[in-house]
Amino acid sequence: MSLLVVGSVAFDSVKTPFGEVENALGGSATFFSASASYFTKVSLVAVIGSDFPEEHLTFLKSKGVNLEGLQRAEGKTFRWKGEYGYALNEARTLDTQLNVFQSFKPELPESYRSAEVVFLANIDPDLQYNVLEQVRRPKWVACDTMNYWIEGKRSSLLKILKKVDLLLINDGEARQLAGEANLVNAARNILSLGPKILIIKRGEYGALMFNGKSIFAVPAFPLEKIFDPTGAGDTFAGGVMGYLSKAKSFDDHHLRRAIVYGSVMASFNVEAFSLDRLRDLSQEEISARSRAFKELTHFEVS
Amino acid sequence: MSLLVVGSVAFDSVKTPFGEVENALGGSATFFSASASYFTKVSLVAVIGSDFPEEHLTFLKSKGVNLEGLQRAEGKTFRWKGEYGYALNEARTLDTQLNVFQSFKPELPESYRSAEVVFLANIDPDLQYNVLEQVRRPKWVACDTMNYWIEGKRSSLLKILKKVDLLLINDGEARQLAGEANLVNAARNILSLGPKILIIKRGEYGALMFNGKSIFAVPAFPLEKIFDPTGAGDTFAGGVMGYLSKAKSFDDHHLRRAIVYGSVMASFNVEAFSLDRLRDLSQEEISARSRAFKELTHFEVS
Repeated sequence: MSLLVVGSVAFDSVKTPFGEVENALGGSATFFSASASYFTKVSLVAVIGSDFPEEHLTFLKSKGVNLEGLQRAEGKTFRWKGEYGYALNEARTLDTQLNVFQSFKPELPESYRSAEVVFLANIDPDLQYNVLEQVRRPKWVACDTMNYWIEGKRSSLLKILKKVDLLLINDGEARQLAGEANLVNAARNILSLGPKILIIKRGEYGALMFNGKSIFAVPAFPLEKIFDPTGAGDTFAGGVMGYLSKAKSFDDHHLRRAIVYGSVMASFNVEAFSLDRLRDLSQEEISARSRAFKELTHFEVS
Repeated sequence: MSLLVVGSVAFDSVKTPFGEVENALGGSATFFSASASYFTKVSLVAVIGSDFPEEHLTFLKSKGVNLEGLQRAEGKTFRWKGEYGYALNEARTLDTQLNVFQSFKPELPESYRSAEVVFLANIDPDLQYNVLEQVRRPKWVACDTMNYWIEGKRSSLLKILKKVDLLLINDGEARQLAGEANLVNAARNILSLGPKILIIKRGEYGALMFNGKSIFAVPAFPLEKIFDPTGAGDTFAGGVMGYLSKAKSFDDHHLRRAIVYGSVMASFNVEAFSLDRLRDLSQEEISARSRAFKELTHFEVS
């Protein structure tokens, strides 16, 4: 199924205890697209500035990403600067420059409007709604959000939540959105707002999925070397949505498998800065790590 | 196989956002024994004061716990007072009174000395060593410890670690013991100190097992109501060691299953204050929750 993503394409400057990069390729839509490209064809909606180098576009095209909906505006590309301590689970944002993103009005090319699967990455919920309205008859819609919108644009967020099948947020955001510390109760509250499925990302602790009937839990893959967690959540979402689009099914069995593939992709992504590890993964590496996930979690009870 | 535990029997005063108890039955050896009693016969070594009520002994006996090695000393029983916030993952200790535990010299009755499986709960590593020396020919030895001993009695701790098959500690303790933030690397360091198996407890995030060849990860059971996390780690250990003693096997297959049973028992324990939830569990409740754990974590990859 055709997969559409709207989100940011950005330059990230990141410092971790293991090194640093300046103005590396980043942005939610970028990580998402690179990750999902291993499973299906992705159409990207975003905006870049006049400073955006051709090499990054060449890379995305090499991954089969459709850039027809990538707008080019006068000015500078969105920039984010952050650093991580040894805990690596929370970034400290040092600087955010919206630049061309500030006046971004997503407009979908005609060819995008028949997309069957849509992922609304973490942007202003009004923009998410606007994008969704331009898609003719989406079969499956997922979205992400963040504390900033939960706090500052709650009514817009609640409006988009009524339209989505799957909400994909982290544990802190789930607690904040539901106003409830217990995750099981928070999930129940959130499912009553519209989404049929809630996936809660827990960073180094893995992910949880709630569908109102059952819960699925998967750990993160234990890694010896984690260089840079930037983009892990979007890479996870790319694996989840890419796999579902490929599988053409959204039942519990495929959702569980999708979460494992999302975890696999995220585990690769954190092994290098920017999305360097997503540049030339082989299908065999992805399969091998998904089998390693099975080995990691398998047990039998009598 | 016969299972021996040495640890504390105590009175806990605990406050959580959901209520509080004063001088409730607690202590590492108590939680451990009550939990393990659902799988095998347990012999307990500990000390209580002259203030210890008969009803608690009656309860432990009703669980088939052998109290021949429970010393009674003049004075007050060990007391701990703590409170938890909404996060529930870390206790704030308000008061610790060692009382009769201060001069505790574990002495094993003759009938205990042939124990095949030994669990050294979190006490002074010199006492752990002393107990182990009194056991004739243990087949499988596990121990727990804490930051206090890692920092203050490191050489004694390293001495006991050379003697144990399984070390069972939390993630913070593992990082501190290894002097290494990354858990995979920390585990490798710790396994080089003696233990063949390392189980890392991560509270609400579950547990990890390392054996030098593979890693096993299990989430904690998602619960709607968590009243009191006190004793969860010891209850987990009781389930792990109780199941292994019953299974008479310590291979990877049984260790994984043991960790699931440990998680099952811990998930029950946090549903009520003290060890109230461990008083009258049925085998059917334990089986049902272990099947729920399978359902929680099961997926298939192609």
